[in-house]
Amino acid sequence: MAGTEIEELIALLARLPGLGPRSARRAMLQLMRKRENLLIPLGDALLRARDSIVNCHICGNIDTHDPCSICADSGREPGLICVVEDVGDLWALERTGAMRGRYHVLGGTLSALDGVGPDALNLGTLAMRAKVAEMREIIIATGATVEGQSTAYYIIDMLADADHVTITRLAHGVPVGGELHYLDDGTITVALSARRTF
Amino acid sequence: MAGTEIEELIALLARLPGLGPRSARRAMLQLMRKRENLLIPLGDALLRARDSIVNCHICGNIDTHDPCSICADSGREPGLICVVEDVGDLWALERTGAMRGRYHVLGGTLSALDGVGPDALNLGTLAMRAKVAEMREIIIATGATVEGQSTAYYIIDMLADADHVTITRLAHGVPVGGELHYLDDGTITVALSARRTF
Repeated sequence: MAGTEIEELIALLARLPGLGPRSARRAMLQLMRKRENLLIPLGDALLRARDSIVNCHICGNIDTHDPCSICADSGREPGLICVVEDVGDLWALERTGAMRGRYHVLGGTLSALDGVGPDALNLGTLAMRAKVAEMREIIIATGATVEGQSTAYYIIDMLADADHVTITRLAHGVPVGGELHYLDDGTITVALSARRTF
Repeated sequence: MAGTEIEELIALLARLPGLGPRSARRAMLQLMRKRENLLIPLGDALLRARDSIVNCHICGNIDTHDPCSICADSGREPGLICVVEDVGDLWALERTGAMRGRYHVLGGTLSALDGVGPDALNLGTLAMRAKVAEMREIIIATGATVEGQSTAYYIIDMLADADHVTITRLAHGVPVGGELHYLDDGTITVALSARRTF
């Protein structure tokens, strides 16, 4: 290999999810080939991100403003919050255009194995947001995993006092375009018991 | 999605080989989570790379010095050059520790389809390096693809005058650890005709 600067950069690139040591080397070469169009803009964008991107103190989303553009959007339904594990989930929901309310980003799930307790998650502000009189519904959209579901039940317990709020979850079932023979038994069982008339 | 800075950074990350739009979003979230340990060091390293990493004017390698550390290494055999398509190939050969000479990085292959002619490759300095009296052997290690092989034959033609230099190529055959039934017919044919006694 060559200079330590190059090795250092490859090591950093290899820490991005989706890139291993081999693809980090390819990325490095691509960066050197496209110095003006990729390397410099990416370096600049990263350092600009450091200064400009902040966590929203209300919902935990990342944005260039605090409160974030979603919390600041007065066109959103004020009484509706969707609780998600992380910002990637928020983006996925936003891309659908189907969510008219705001969000609450937990920053992970409870996990006894990884030593993640309630204090490590963005739960305190959620309890406060639930108490507001105009709050109507909180959709818990944590993942359909063991951790996601235990986190959901923890939140349901935590919000037990807020009895003016309906707590809901996303529907389980066959994914759109999904083929039955690729699906796990759990999903098929749930889809069957939650069947609806045409 | 959120602020344009975030979208811009995701778009830049998605241009790295190995990352698509989806993994670029994951990479972005990882960068925001590890602001101190990954985002800032990566941004710094990229902008340092812009200033410090240069192409070696002799061989075309990338390094923090010109001539590169390999060309400047007086312990290398002076009469031996290995011609490779790009810096990734050079790194692969260096990792083996089996190459005692220096390199010549073409920066690609000839490709009529992509409009890459001889002028687009680092060929002029190769012709000059071949003329040096102490030059003994040039190994052409371009890929075993149509483009790699046409480039090899172009170089052989180009170096026809340098008759003090032996021009060689890497051996073809079964990869170490390779299983016959996964190999293509071409490789098996070559491996068979180039068979050696134990």
